[in-house]
Amino acid sequence: MRRIGVLTSGGDAPGMNAAIRAVTRTAIRKGMEVIGFVGGYDGLIDRDTMVLDIRTVGGILQHGGTILKTARSERFKTAEGVEQAVQTLDFFGVDALVVIGGDGSFRGAKELSRRGIMVIGIPGTIDNDMGYTDYTIGFDTAVNTVIDAIGKIKDTAIAHNKITIIEVMGRHCGDIALYSGLTGGAEYIMLPEMEMDLEGLYEKINAGIERHKHHCLIIKAEGVPISNAELAAYIEEKTGQTPREVVLGFLQRGGSPSARDRLLASKMGSYAVELIEQETGSRAIGISGRELTAMDLDEVTDIKREADLELLHLMYSLS
Amino acid sequence: MRRIGVLTSGGDAPGMNAAIRAVTRTAIRKGMEVIGFVGGYDGLIDRDTMVLDIRTVGGILQHGGTILKTARSERFKTAEGVEQAVQTLDFFGVDALVVIGGDGSFRGAKELSRRGIMVIGIPGTIDNDMGYTDYTIGFDTAVNTVIDAIGKIKDTAIAHNKITIIEVMGRHCGDIALYSGLTGGAEYIMLPEMEMDLEGLYEKINAGIERHKHHCLIIKAEGVPISNAELAAYIEEKTGQTPREVVLGFLQRGGSPSARDRLLASKMGSYAVELIEQETGSRAIGISGRELTAMDLDEVTDIKREADLELLHLMYSLS
Amino acid sequence: MRRIGVLTSGGDAPGMNAAIRAVTRTAIRKGMEVIGFVGGYDGLIDRDTMVLDIRTVGGILQHGGTILKTARSERFKTAEGVEQAVQTLDFFGVDALVVIGGDGSFRGAKELSRRGIMVIGIPGTIDNDMGYTDYTIGFDTAVNTVIDAIGKIKDTAIAHNKITIIEVMGRHCGDIALYSGLTGGAEYIMLPEMEMDLEGLYEKINAGIERHKHHCLIIKAEGVPISNAELAAYIEEKTGQTPREVVLGFLQRGGSPSARDRLLASKMGSYAVELIEQETGSRAIGISGRELTAMDLDEVTDIKREADLELLHLMYSLS
Amino acid sequence: MRRIGVLTSGGDAPGMNAAIRAVTRTAIRKGMEVIGFVGGYDGLIDRDTMVLDIRTVGGILQHGGTILKTARSERFKTAEGVEQAVQTLDFFGVDALVVIGGDGSFRGAKELSRRGIMVIGIPGTIDNDMGYTDYTIGFDTAVNTVIDAIGKIKDTAIAHNKITIIEVMGRHCGDIALYSGLTGGAEYIMLPEMEMDLEGLYEKINAGIERHKHHCLIIKAEGVPISNAELAAYIEEKTGQTPREVVLGFLQRGGSPSARDRLLASKMGSYAVELIEQETGSRAIGISGRELTAMDLDEVTDIKREADLELLHLMYSLS
Repeated sequence: MRRIGVLTSGGDAPGMNAAIRAVTRTAIRKGMEVIGFVGGYDGLIDRDTMVLDIRTVGGILQHGGTILKTARSERFKTAEGVEQAVQTLDFFGVDALVVIGGDGSFRGAKELSRRGIMVIGIPGTIDNDMGYTDYTIGFDTAVNTVIDAIGKIKDTAIAHNKITIIEVMGRHCGDIALYSGLTGGAEYIMLPEMEMDLEGLYEKINAGIERHKHHCLIIKAEGVPISNAELAAYIEEKTGQTPREVVLGFLQRGGSPSARDRLLASKMGSYAVELIEQETGSRAIGISGRELTAMDLDEVTDIKREADLELLHLMYSLS
Repeated sequence: MRRIGVLTSGGDAPGMNAAIRAVTRTAIRKGMEVIGFVGGYDGLIDRDTMVLDIRTVGGILQHGGTILKTARSERFKTAEGVEQAVQTLDFFGVDALVVIGGDGSFRGAKELSRRGIMVIGIPGTIDNDMGYTDYTIGFDTAVNTVIDAIGKIKDTAIAHNKITIIEVMGRHCGDIALYSGLTGGAEYIMLPEMEMDLEGLYEKINAGIERHKHHCLIIKAEGVPISNAELAAYIEEKTGQTPREVVLGFLQRGGSPSARDRLLASKMGSYAVELIEQETGSRAIGISGRELTAMDLDEVTDIKREADLELLHLMYSLS
Repeated sequence: MRRIGVLTSGGDAPGMNAAIRAVTRTAIRKGMEVIGFVGGYDGLIDRDTMVLDIRTVGGILQHGGTILKTARSERFKTAEGVEQAVQTLDFFGVDALVVIGGDGSFRGAKELSRRGIMVIGIPGTIDNDMGYTDYTIGFDTAVNTVIDAIGKIKDTAIAHNKITIIEVMGRHCGDIALYSGLTGGAEYIMLPEMEMDLEGLYEKINAGIERHKHHCLIIKAEGVPISNAELAAYIEEKTGQTPREVVLGFLQRGGSPSARDRLLASKMGSYAVELIEQETGSRAIGISGRELTAMDLDEVTDIKREADLELLHLMYSLS
Repeated sequence: MRRIGVLTSGGDAPGMNAAIRAVTRTAIRKGMEVIGFVGGYDGLIDRDTMVLDIRTVGGILQHGGTILKTARSERFKTAEGVEQAVQTLDFFGVDALVVIGGDGSFRGAKELSRRGIMVIGIPGTIDNDMGYTDYTIGFDTAVNTVIDAIGKIKDTAIAHNKITIIEVMGRHCGDIALYSGLTGGAEYIMLPEMEMDLEGLYEKINAGIERHKHHCLIIKAEGVPISNAELAAYIEEKTGQTPREVVLGFLQRGGSPSARDRLLASKMGSYAVELIEQETGSRAIGISGRELTAMDLDEVTDIKREADLELLHLMYSLS
């Protein structure tokens, strides 16, 4: 009988619990045992564990956050930390590990893989910044959370004829900004992948004013290299209007996962156990179109997602 | 310059307004004119029109329903009705028509296509019962609405240890039941595509009772050939417990569309205008994986969707 | 040191958990001990208990349902059942009991009170059918749940020009229908407290049709003595239109409690412990305007709430 | 026949539309005419009007924002502005004006009242900072919006064991912080009405850490005289942990109004017209317990609300 470990690492994302549930129940029903490590790689180092069985993971499918807690581990970046983690896995007789997290977590997973541990990576991050997969777990929920917020902010922006800058998450990848801007009905989007074009922004605002549309929502990913204050000052100088600023922040990380994220997490969690059963070696699970994929873990990190310029074009043709 | 018509037909679905907006704005920005016909094919017959311009479709992206209203037209099923519709299109100088609706609406669209009108079909129905496309507009929202309802019903089912039958929409296609059952954490699903297996249902309930899980949520698509009362009677006879019954009904049709449905509708609406521009002839737009598709309109109707047995299997392995 | 018991009984209501949390934490911080009885009065009879401490009640404030589970106990209606319950309280050294529930639960509480046990009743029921208090815990949440559902149903009713009958909970008290009809923008309300006036309903529908408002939402409390089918048949006969029917059902019982219900539950739960500390004897907590009240438990049952005719009048003047 | 004017002024609040609807429909059904002035007092000065009839106010009950738009008018603070406003009302034959807004808007209303115009003030502001009334329109919705956000932020705070500072609206009045902190299950609240007690905050955080509760939510009203950065620095210095900061901002102003706000707005809007009919002279409508009140407009401005210390005490005894 196999014993597998699970941990969540890096920024949490809605749907991580659904993935934990899927890994656990699939594994147990295949006759395996499951150990959860608490608080990401630190839990591996500190031997901080949690029993995962059929009941433990009951009632968590619909909850944001992660029952396994999560962290970015500094200690795991050292050779000593990795060594302790390997010893922990050996101590508990864990012969395969499922890591649910983002790009940084996958880089950590590769360290373990190099030491001979089979690691399956499940992409869990709201940012959708992992280029090897179409979607990451948590992204759909985050976009829905953001468009709900945009809807509320739009109510008051229209009532006051206000230009409003809304900063959303996304340091390197502007997908949250792009998808929520398009589906939230924003007037302008600023992505980290694009050259800043303040002149273009001004023209867009001005075009609205000329057709008597005085409110204007600008969605700006946090990775865009201009502060909200600077951007507001630029707009004020050019238009004479003082924009409002809203930073959505950690709000975007929580909430009950959407149906789509629960489904993606359930599929990926279950697939992770199948790969372990098949002894495929370390893999990163992704989704491409309708199909789950299992790429070599070594090959998937540091793959940037290109901004989807067609979506950007669509957004402007509809706004 | 081209003049195109738009109508929504059959059961409404969240995202229809997003599609109307996308068709309208894309067309106008390409220099076309747009006329909306009100109330489905009846609006074509009765020459009931609505101006669609950049402003008219402002602020509708986030609303359920359809500003063009919709209906199932009996008159359009007659040769006379079709003839009147053709004359209306001729009268207004409309040379291409976008029909947003389900399978029945597409069959109507084919009648017009046979009379020489270029018709583009956009799949809009919550049921996801159109086999030629992975997803229809409205389905994602409906599933999210249903899992929200399931969450509420589960609260009280757990508090009372109750078996609860929840009937969801889906006459021929059980996708709402399947996806919402899986992502809502139901214990059992009954689909119209599957042979009824009451014995299996009883075993499932019993297995729960044996491990002291006394509540049990059964998601049943409306097309399953047993009434809720009969099903409840069967369960009561076998278990001694009186199940609760909830029929979600028209609740599932409304609500603000999810990000995913808004995106799908925006893409499809915009693509419809591109096809008109390219004079492709009548087409039905679909989505396959990440890609939009444009099949011959004649070939897409009456294609049943097969129930995804892998999802069903996944659901039971996780519940 | 005192030891107090808590139970929830009858139909569950959002906010019951908030009340349990408030009772528990207030009591413990006053140096008391708290025992939860599971499954209403049956838990008293069967000595089915649950430890309630500071941690147990953490993270439940925002959840619908009740961690103590609930039931309507048939056995407690017998002298033997009451006797067993009294013995249980004696066995555990519980000298005061908090009962969270509706009118039936309070009648049960009186039985215990007559046997010398101090019982504090907290009104928890979505129906708002307890006349001695302005509001019961769960009512505000239920009304918000219903208006959310009405909003969704209205989307599709407008799109199809449909008359729609929406049945909401309320056997004797029409407050859910009245408040949700008024705040949901319904066209007509049917309450159990009012004489049925089908002629008036028809006139209302007709008046709408005459000013080209073809959809019409009728909110009907479940206690109104006409079935949905009969009502639909009447409307169809008079107007020629087939109404849609939606029964919201158990959906109304669940969901995360509103801010107002959490506040009311927190205040009442805390107040219950203060009354126990003051050894007031058995009381029923209520709210009158801004003030909590503590009436003699014997005097509060079977007090019907009068329908607020001013609200009904307001509703019709605004619809 | 009377002709009455309506405007919304100052910060918008969910429920303003419900109030506009109630004023309009009640007035028209009493045989009056209604004119809306657009953009607050500026609309009065600029004669910017909007027809308000039965249909115009259809479908707005459930929407945030205000169809009459709103602003803070600088010009109306001058004698010349007030004079122009008076002339506008004279020009249109308006003999009574309903002003929906906050304290600043009511001070403006008094200027008009002094010039002989009957003005009815309806309290519309999310801040609940008008001491003469128990509640203002928009407050209940804002608190529900905030506790929804707190719930999401809590998901990720728990997953990461993070101290999180959440800034909510409220410059002078801490009611949003107080009510949402209590009902959202925060650990600490900072109100502008209270002396800052950083030592007490630290003790609270520390007490949590000592019982292994590592996350801590601090709700801080914007009027508290310490910046989020300063507060974070203090906490970091004392605990060694870097707190997260979230500023909810304009999100709190929008969204569909809660049932309670819709009801309050409907009642107050209708009552405003009754007062006009009764020619009471200028009044400010409020609510006290269950009863609407109509105080002299001159007496209600600049009445600060005292922080409800009992609620604060309750909050800490339950957290």
